[in-house]
Amino acid sequence: MTSAPGPSSLPYTFLGPEGTFTESALLQVPGAGAAKRVPSSNAASALAMVRSGQAFAAMLPIENSIEGGVPATLDAISAGTQLRILHEVVVPVSFVLVARAGVALADITAVGTHPHAWAQTRDWFGEHLPHAIHVPANSTAAAAHELLAGGSAFQGAVCAPLVAEQTGLTILAAGIEDNVGAVTRFVLVGLPGTLPEPTGADKTTLAIPLPKDHPGALMAILEQFASRGVNLSRIESRPTGKYLGHYVFSVDVDGHIHDARVADALRGLHRVSPDMLFLGSYPRADKQPPLIRAYNSDTAFAESGLWVDGLLGLGPV
Amino acid sequence: MTSAPGPSSLPYTFLGPEGTFTESALLQVPGAGAAKRVPSSNAASALAMVRSGQAFAAMLPIENSIEGGVPATLDAISAGTQLRILHEVVVPVSFVLVARAGVALADITAVGTHPHAWAQTRDWFGEHLPHAIHVPANSTAAAAHELLAGGSAFQGAVCAPLVAEQTGLTILAAGIEDNVGAVTRFVLVGLPGTLPEPTGADKTTLAIPLPKDHPGALMAILEQFASRGVNLSRIESRPTGKYLGHYVFSVDVDGHIHDARVADALRGLHRVSPDMLFLGSYPRADKQPPLIRAYNSDTAFAESGLWVDGLLGLGPV
Amino acid sequence: MTSAPGPSSLPYTFLGPEGTFTESALLQVPGAGAAKRVPSSNAASALAMVRSGQAFAAMLPIENSIEGGVPATLDAISAGTQLRILHEVVVPVSFVLVARAGVALADITAVGTHPHAWAQTRDWFGEHLPHAIHVPANSTAAAAHELLAGGSAFQGAVCAPLVAEQTGLTILAAGIEDNVGAVTRFVLVGLPGTLPEPTGADKTTLAIPLPKDHPGALMAILEQFASRGVNLSRIESRPTGKYLGHYVFSVDVDGHIHDARVADALRGLHRVSPDMLFLGSYPRADKQPPLIRAYNSDTAFAESGLWVDGLLGLGPV
Amino acid sequence: MTSAPGPSSLPYTFLGPEGTFTESALLQVPGAGAAKRVPSSNAASALAMVRSGQAFAAMLPIENSIEGGVPATLDAISAGTQLRILHEVVVPVSFVLVARAGVALADITAVGTHPHAWAQTRDWFGEHLPHAIHVPANSTAAAAHELLAGGSAFQGAVCAPLVAEQTGLTILAAGIEDNVGAVTRFVLVGLPGTLPEPTGADKTTLAIPLPKDHPGALMAILEQFASRGVNLSRIESRPTGKYLGHYVFSVDVDGHIHDARVADALRGLHRVSPDMLFLGSYPRADKQPPLIRAYNSDTAFAESGLWVDGLLGLGPV
Repeated sequence: MTSAPGPSSLPYTFLGPEGTFTESALLQVPGAGAAKRVPSSNAASALAMVRSGQAFAAMLPIENSIEGGVPATLDAISAGTQLRILHEVVVPVSFVLVARAGVALADITAVGTHPHAWAQTRDWFGEHLPHAIHVPANSTAAAAHELLAGGSAFQGAVCAPLVAEQTGLTILAAGIEDNVGAVTRFVLVGLPGTLPEPTGADKTTLAIPLPKDHPGALMAILEQFASRGVNLSRIESRPTGKYLGHYVFSVDVDGHIHDARVADALRGLHRVSPDMLFLGSYPRADKQPPLIRAYNSDTAFAESGLWVDGLLGLGPV
Repeated sequence: MTSAPGPSSLPYTFLGPEGTFTESALLQVPGAGAAKRVPSSNAASALAMVRSGQAFAAMLPIENSIEGGVPATLDAISAGTQLRILHEVVVPVSFVLVARAGVALADITAVGTHPHAWAQTRDWFGEHLPHAIHVPANSTAAAAHELLAGGSAFQGAVCAPLVAEQTGLTILAAGIEDNVGAVTRFVLVGLPGTLPEPTGADKTTLAIPLPKDHPGALMAILEQFASRGVNLSRIESRPTGKYLGHYVFSVDVDGHIHDARVADALRGLHRVSPDMLFLGSYPRADKQPPLIRAYNSDTAFAESGLWVDGLLGLGPV
Repeated sequence: MTSAPGPSSLPYTFLGPEGTFTESALLQVPGAGAAKRVPSSNAASALAMVRSGQAFAAMLPIENSIEGGVPATLDAISAGTQLRILHEVVVPVSFVLVARAGVALADITAVGTHPHAWAQTRDWFGEHLPHAIHVPANSTAAAAHELLAGGSAFQGAVCAPLVAEQTGLTILAAGIEDNVGAVTRFVLVGLPGTLPEPTGADKTTLAIPLPKDHPGALMAILEQFASRGVNLSRIESRPTGKYLGHYVFSVDVDGHIHDARVADALRGLHRVSPDMLFLGSYPRADKQPPLIRAYNSDTAFAESGLWVDGLLGLGPV
Repeated sequence: MTSAPGPSSLPYTFLGPEGTFTESALLQVPGAGAAKRVPSSNAASALAMVRSGQAFAAMLPIENSIEGGVPATLDAISAGTQLRILHEVVVPVSFVLVARAGVALADITAVGTHPHAWAQTRDWFGEHLPHAIHVPANSTAAAAHELLAGGSAFQGAVCAPLVAEQTGLTILAAGIEDNVGAVTRFVLVGLPGTLPEPTGADKTTLAIPLPKDHPGALMAILEQFASRGVNLSRIESRPTGKYLGHYVFSVDVDGHIHDARVADALRGLHRVSPDMLFLGSYPRADKQPPLIRAYNSDTAFAESGLWVDGLLGLGPV
């Protein structure tokens, strides 16, 4: 199987509208450019399409998003029937200033865009268009489309490069973001089924309810990882909302559930926190393989299993 | 000293505009209601006012904010000269639908508000005003003020109860949020100086760069807490942006730096991660005292210090 | 099978001579009283008889022995072809003063016994026979037999109650040990084969070479136990003699290798220390069952295994 | 001060009799060769002389002793008023076969020595004097002195080289031990007072009662060491005899209580186990300095202390 399967008969969905960074992320998935792509208005409705079989998979922001939705994404994946993260995509957060044909930079007195995009281009506008006012929009793409449609209260829009390309609006300035080098991380979410194959540079995402709120509880969870040499690349405690002081740990670990050390850590975690969720094993966007010590390799796990089997009389000594 | 000092000569600032949940949070600080309050357009500029001595302290969202700014808040506190969190406030996320006098619910065809507030009231509008369209605004308060000013493209606005009170707009419906019981957490940030006094139910916030990215590094940090019985109430790994795989752990722990166990854990952490930041010890909003075992009490620390001093010939055996 | 099988065709051996505490321990093994029992002069030769098939099993002191041999026992078990501890026996360390018929306490001017037994009855003799001198013997039983044979340089012997019974010597005083309540622990060692069945109150003995001598190495070993909730009832670091700073950890843990948590900890340990030795799972002498939390039960291990199998597509989800 | 002070007015004592390995160990202490040396018959009486001021210090075996006394040594140090280990000495376990002048190897039909020394020279005698019988003695030195006195039931004695030198008996064979390279470790024990000065290659000995018998208790103790980078060079669980399942951990750690990391670990341990005993910091016999990471150095501890003091307003920030 490929790492991002998609039957031609089902569309992809994504956090819309069209032309946002999320659609840029989806276009990085092999095959998605040629597939049908349906925008959804929020993470929950995107995942509802997946759960009901109307979409093959949904692309959603998971970290540092410009247009929001990140906590909503994790919550929406965790609530309801099981889903799996199939793919991770990292997109540079880079903005362009677009206008209709014939409009020059000096003509712009009002700029439409999402409040977060406006906040992240304040330095550029302070220098180049200090008198321009901001007209808020629901998304960067929405501002561009409003501009394209004509009659908008602004002459320029701040959006992702993709929407400029899609609409044919003129790019007056590119790379206008204040924080150069920032990225947003997105995930493609589908139904459980065949897992993406291990690539040697994979990530596994888990949601682990903390069994009890005491000084040792987090250590008890972490020693399940440490005792198998599984490295955490992200950890976040999130209140569950159930009652005061009750947390879920949302973690990414290096490796695939098909790696013996990850599977063994999951066995240990499931005992300590039986309501934990496995949210998927999938290729890392950065393709960086983890450093695995020999005693945490699949071979070491296999040998130790055989050794104990021998002691138990279940196989050759 | 009081737990929220504020010289009358200096104003407070907050993530504006006026009437947002952030100003509601600020009004919970003793004395802030009578003090001058200056809105800032983002976390960085609010903190610049504090750092430059133009404001006594800044109220900023730190978790689950409706109108954004949370990652920006932590980053802005950590960057630049040292600041301290002085106070924590928790505000229920509850929305009202407001209109000008004489406008009835049935008259509303368009609703102005921040995109996130719109996302969190979709169920209510789906049931009560299914045909209303959304007009995005930079904040919930901005929408209300636009409505008040007249000539807006919408007849209703979704905002915090405070702004309804401040503007005198009519509340057509209250408690319209889909997720009843949600809260946002805010912090009051000031200059280092006299620490808020311990209350017995305190919180300490730290930013701890991870020394090395290997399976044991997080454990090495956590054992500094565990060996002193210090409980973590929040942990979040955040990429530093410096280079791939480099993280800062943003953590809240139970207790005050004046508690011996917290001070001792800080000593241990500073050795392991010398660039760590102490962002403040301050009263918990929920006033819940932690459960401290006798051997982690101030008395136990004092006794063990005397015992070792005696062995070292530094005091009575 | 029974917990201490022994084909009638093969004798037991024990650290001799006859009548020592070690033979008392052997007589507690079901069936050993009726079996042939051959004394060995030291642990190595006793185990050589077992390894070569001349004896079914050997009883040897393992802790707090009067007549020595304890470090030798652990070393002799670990060196050479694999052996297994089959049974644990605890014997009270209680001494009697014996003499030939017709000899009274007042007649005794010299006392024969092993130097360690003499050391442990000094208070009694100081009070009751302050002028008696000590004549050293190779074992407590040897002194008694020398007395029985006649012509010895002493009129009384200090020995175990068993040898008084075996020889028919007169007991002049019983319970003369200074440290009342002391016990010695013995183990019955045989060839690998069928393991003693789990009884619910078992012990597992391991010899674990320390992989590297650094501050975390012992923790790395212990977290393999802790992450499965396996309690250590004895730990001892022993220099291996191979080179400076190289250690073997000799440990007893609560539970049987047929307990899932113990088997799983062994799998983890074998990865970290591949030269580790499994020295047996056998019933505890004190019959005290360990306290096992529900999440470390066999059921919890089985469920977590099925859960991961389901995720891996190896079984029902 | 020197590392082994000894006022001329007070003698040393040691586990006697004269000429044992223990006296050899004592002679390695600077100044002890010229000082008065009094043999004691067991560890408890040797330490009683120290506690009562009759002896300056006592040399006792602590590990792998030929003539016993090791568990007794640790127990005798721990019981009663506080004592301190001042010095560690390692002595090779090497035996000689001695006889009176004119006696040849072929003349020997019986050999006097301590049972443990006999056990450790069996191979040599099996090869060179297969028909010689063993006559037990209370110590290796006692056998030699009996031989010297004349009229003994044996013609040869197995003893330490020192006793041959002291008695002038003829050495018929040297290095007759089966296990070449074995060593015994001894400690010099005195009253608390001035601690031996740190040398950079020191050892600290502790006795730590286990607070509770559960899977995490040992980890709780070890994390006090690990969180300060203190390495254990020896660990041994010893039943306290108070009640079933109650243990004391006897440990040696690398470093001196004047090293900040050791002192800080002791503070943490004292909280967790308030009845722990500090048995001394003293130079290592092998003079091997430990590997200390920069963040566990005295400088790192001092800097972290100043940093927290600054935060607490107790010093410069």
